[in-house]
Amino acid sequence: MSRPETRAVAPVALSILADAGRLGGSNGRYEKVLSDLEGLYRDADAYRARLAQDDGKPVYWVEASQTEDGPGGLITGISVLEPGTVGAEFAMTRGHLHAVSDRSELYVGLSGRGVMVLEALDGRSEVLDVEPGLAVYVPGHWVHRSVNVGRERFSTLFCYAADAGQDYGIIQRAGGMKSLVVATDDGYAVQPNPDHRGYQAASRS
Amino acid sequence: MSRPETRAVAPVALSILADAGRLGGSNGRYEKVLSDLEGLYRDADAYRARLAQDDGKPVYWVEASQTEDGPGGLITGISVLEPGTVGAEFAMTRGHLHAVSDRSELYVGLSGRGVMVLEALDGRSEVLDVEPGLAVYVPGHWVHRSVNVGRERFSTLFCYAADAGQDYGIIQRAGGMKSLVVATDDGYAVQPNPDHRGYQAASRS
Repeated sequence: MSRPETRAVAPVALSILADAGRLGGSNGRYEKVLSDLEGLYRDADAYRARLAQDDGKPVYWVEASQTEDGPGGLITGISVLEPGTVGAEFAMTRGHLHAVSDRSELYVGLSGRGVMVLEALDGRSEVLDVEPGLAVYVPGHWVHRSVNVGRERFSTLFCYAADAGQDYGIIQRAGGMKSLVVATDDGYAVQPNPDHRGYQAASRS
Repeated sequence: MSRPETRAVAPVALSILADAGRLGGSNGRYEKVLSDLEGLYRDADAYRARLAQDDGKPVYWVEASQTEDGPGGLITGISVLEPGTVGAEFAMTRGHLHAVSDRSELYVGLSGRGVMVLEALDGRSEVLDVEPGLAVYVPGHWVHRSVNVGRERFSTLFCYAADAGQDYGIIQRAGGMKSLVVATDDGYAVQPNPDHRGYQAASRS
């Protein structure tokens, strides 16, 4: 019964500490501070003004668990985004298309109130609410980004194929996403981004 | 910019109604009643006695969302298991190995109190708690089953690759899983199953 070719890695127990923004049992973390996000927000003056007063704390971070590579493995983790605005825009992640662009992703709301902005290469754009009790399935071929539209920390649990990878450059090459999520008196609004010039898939894809 | 070869399916918004055992936005459901589960529980007399009094309501069910086939897609859904015992054993699902056996799966506790029983083909067996705030990553090559060890409905959210499939027969061929989860005065205990004769992978794998 010895099957060395399929020696399975051990199962992983994870603790989801949404309010603390931690994933117990995770084995990877990255974080972004405001100074990492040059060019992300449309209002460069507002960005510089906030940067001048910045305390250097992370504005968003990811804690993830990955134990397998290859097509069979999944990466799961939590994404945590502090509240705030830069100019008119709500706090957001850089966003990405998967490097293997047919790979999909599940996001499940854990705490706070946010939206997922999803844009297909053919010009479709959708904005879906994400909060506790709601989840969004991001199919392959959709650029996607999380935005915190509330006043509390916004956290989600995600799950995607271990071989998916991320193309973060596609949004920058397009002049930003097609839709902006801006603060209003009583919530958020979605506005067209006048700088958006359409998506170009990376040359390798 | 027209890319018919990568016409992306639309994103899916899902509502997780854990207490009701429903997944809003799902497009598939299956359910099991007690009479479907002949041979699942070790105590055949206790099973027949419960069946004689059975009301025919589902003892567990799955509501799932699948919009993509192929290696890039993920299936997500909720698995809901009513509480109870049959003989010494707590209520459980049939359990499975993925038909593409390197495919992994994430389970996230939504309501109630359960365990995931995980068994590798080489004889390793693990039992991990699953409840709100806890998740379990099931790597490829692990047979796995949910067990409700509480007095409430036990529900989990799951996510796995759309091309994984399920081999439900592997447990039956092995005389049941290696570990039994039985009720005790103050919770549960894990006992060896004397009928278990080791796992044999399906001949096609």
